[in-house]
Amino acid sequence: MQLILLSGGSGKRLWPLSNDSYSKQFLRLLPSPDGGRESMIQRAVRQARESGLDAQITIATGENQRDAIVSQIGGGVNIVTEPERRDTFPAIALACLYLGMEKKCGPDEVVVVMPCDTYTDIQYFTAIGKMADAVENGLAELVLMGICPHYPSVKYGYVMPGERNGELFSAKGFTEKPEIERAKELIAEGAFWNGGVFAFRLGYMLAIARQYTNAPDFWKAREEYGVFPKISFDYQVAEKAESVAVLPFKGMWKDIGTWDALSEVIGSNVIGNAIIDEHARNTHIINQLDIPCICIGANNLVVAASPDGILIADKYNCEQVKPYVSAFEVRPMYEERRWGTYKVIDNYTSSDSTRSLTKHLCIAEGRSISYQRHFHRDEVWTFVEGSGILVLDGQVRNVGKGDVVHITKGQMHAIKAVTDLHILEVQMGDFLDESDIERFEYKWE
Amino acid sequence: MQLILLSGGSGKRLWPLSNDSYSKQFLRLLPSPDGGRESMIQRAVRQARESGLDAQITIATGENQRDAIVSQIGGGVNIVTEPERRDTFPAIALACLYLGMEKKCGPDEVVVVMPCDTYTDIQYFTAIGKMADAVENGLAELVLMGICPHYPSVKYGYVMPGERNGELFSAKGFTEKPEIERAKELIAEGAFWNGGVFAFRLGYMLAIARQYTNAPDFWKAREEYGVFPKISFDYQVAEKAESVAVLPFKGMWKDIGTWDALSEVIGSNVIGNAIIDEHARNTHIINQLDIPCICIGANNLVVAASPDGILIADKYNCEQVKPYVSAFEVRPMYEERRWGTYKVIDNYTSSDSTRSLTKHLCIAEGRSISYQRHFHRDEVWTFVEGSGILVLDGQVRNVGKGDVVHITKGQMHAIKAVTDLHILEVQMGDFLDESDIERFEYKWE
Repeated sequence: MQLILLSGGSGKRLWPLSNDSYSKQFLRLLPSPDGGRESMIQRAVRQARESGLDAQITIATGENQRDAIVSQIGGGVNIVTEPERRDTFPAIALACLYLGMEKKCGPDEVVVVMPCDTYTDIQYFTAIGKMADAVENGLAELVLMGICPHYPSVKYGYVMPGERNGELFSAKGFTEKPEIERAKELIAEGAFWNGGVFAFRLGYMLAIARQYTNAPDFWKAREEYGVFPKISFDYQVAEKAESVAVLPFKGMWKDIGTWDALSEVIGSNVIGNAIIDEHARNTHIINQLDIPCICIGANNLVVAASPDGILIADKYNCEQVKPYVSAFEVRPMYEERRWGTYKVIDNYTSSDSTRSLTKHLCIAEGRSISYQRHFHRDEVWTFVEGSGILVLDGQVRNVGKGDVVHITKGQMHAIKAVTDLHILEVQMGDFLDESDIERFEYKWE
Repeated sequence: MQLILLSGGSGKRLWPLSNDSYSKQFLRLLPSPDGGRESMIQRAVRQARESGLDAQITIATGENQRDAIVSQIGGGVNIVTEPERRDTFPAIALACLYLGMEKKCGPDEVVVVMPCDTYTDIQYFTAIGKMADAVENGLAELVLMGICPHYPSVKYGYVMPGERNGELFSAKGFTEKPEIERAKELIAEGAFWNGGVFAFRLGYMLAIARQYTNAPDFWKAREEYGVFPKISFDYQVAEKAESVAVLPFKGMWKDIGTWDALSEVIGSNVIGNAIIDEHARNTHIINQLDIPCICIGANNLVVAASPDGILIADKYNCEQVKPYVSAFEVRPMYEERRWGTYKVIDNYTSSDSTRSLTKHLCIAEGRSISYQRHFHRDEVWTFVEGSGILVLDGQVRNVGKGDVVHITKGQMHAIKAVTDLHILEVQMGDFLDESDIERFEYKWE
């Protein structure tokens, strides 16, 4: 069985902890079995592995999330990246083409697609196993998970059950994001929420994908990604399928994509350097900054602070944040990369419009940044912890705590951490952007 | 006439914008006549100068506030610093010894002492002029300002008026910080708040100071500062004086030493990079960080963010912050010095307990830092704006944008800004503290 985890999302609703390259599924806020904290995607992968499903996991995502996935999940999963953000139908089609053409999976193999940002428990994966069995046994071409509704939501899609066949129902019709009154009627008539979990044979989806591309291999198909319509899997596949069944699911299922919902599952009122006084009730603080945060006497708040910004929101109004954040259009101030993490600590524009940007970089032991150069900036690296190997215009040398390296425009440079490396980097130039980079191959010995 | 402004205070109530070296009177939050913002002490000095009192101004303060005063007030005022923090009686005695012995003021000259952190208008200075006239005309040895109480406060001292003489009353008795019921009685009986404004002849106070020190000059007296008892001027002088009069004052008088009071006079709901959505009522944000702050749907809050920390407080509970802040015991993350300002942007302790501290320094045009060396840290300076003159172990050279200077332990260094200089400074060492500094004379050409 192949399990495709969809990892998308712009993450604006959980600003300032999430940003465009660090979506909500990467926030390490959920209590993990070892007593620490894990992210939504780490939790989903861990649960899938513990479930006994014996599924090969493929994560379908955008190129800008690849580094965060590698950093959080490590090996043992496939990663398929869209060359551009489209919608769930093209993303699932691309992942299936990858499984068929790159991984040589057979057309009869059962594929289950699931989102990675739903808060569930192990029963959810038991249900996924049943959906796969139903496809395996030919009960339907497409089986989807029907969540027993908790309330008449206007944010979800609904699927109406038809005839019953064991634990399954046939699917009689779909309604996407109804008005509140229609939602109440749908629930009264027995409709389920569409949980975005789909099971089908690989060949079923490949046949649909083949309507758009005849590329001879996966990489060619990926190049032609623009041929796929920007449309959801629900509209393009589920609603058009001839044989669709629904497996009802009554277990734990939470959408924790908003601060009020997320605060209910993180298990404590404070994460990070923060104090809530005894007079403040039902208030949560998540502080990812080094500086302390104190909340005095204020109730029903979510406070979230990160290098990107500070949010103070009434818990029951916190979804209103999205339009304000969209107006910012600022660079991410924190990112998790395959080589480690960086945090922007100072961002200064001088009177003549040249700029400086100061970062605290942490390169993890054994990891390296690519051999690269920049055309618009100098960089000054001050090494404050660890040891590493520096390559500067082809010259290799050891560097470590106390060293200072001045990298000028156009100089080729790479660094590999022998032990965890902490570097204060001051960038200076007229254009300071992650896109000002030219990468080269470098063979570390 | 000599006007002594008392500038003290630990500033914990206005955390995180104020700290031990940057007390509340230095926060540039009050609307100024030029449309910008000024601090409490800037406002007091400006009002005193505009009042037509023709007073020479002396600021009595602690050594740790000298730089902020020089930076905010510039020249034209005397600054007398206590060698250690004691109380208002010793501070006023020291300032009077300075006026008598260093400034050679005569014993008949009238001195008025006032706090610098009261929010008032020009009428307050008119009243100060009347107090000085009353002393000048021999109506009393000591005249104090009696504020007509706004409510039965338990935080202030009360003075009971006796016999009336023109606009003045004799003072019949003092009550310091009464219980609420007693405060109500006092007000019913006609008591005033003691506004902490006192007028007397210099000789009157010098005679009292001479009970503790016979030092032949001011600097010797300052060395002996410990001989003065730690006691307030009210207890030591006002309550013991034989001839005390009170001048009632009904004009504007606000104690803006707490967030709720301060927020009422700053004239806007937002200062800095912040957004308050339309659903949030009676909420104020003061954001001194570069990152944005968004408040959604939360009412009656004060939000204050600075490099020292973040406060979210219900406006009517915000005084509770003091004990929490006292528990921190952290270094100031922002300071205003005579040469400019610095902001701590990163504070990192490595696994082997060595540390790095990164600052953004701004040295104002024409200003310089002293010739100095450190014994426990290296410093790496990356110049991101401006030009200056660097002295490094006696060698003088020009430096400016794009330069990098590595100053190792023990190296003597000084810098003078030719134009405003912005420097990213990375400190590295086993002990990173402002006290690790040895200063030397340097004659700039």
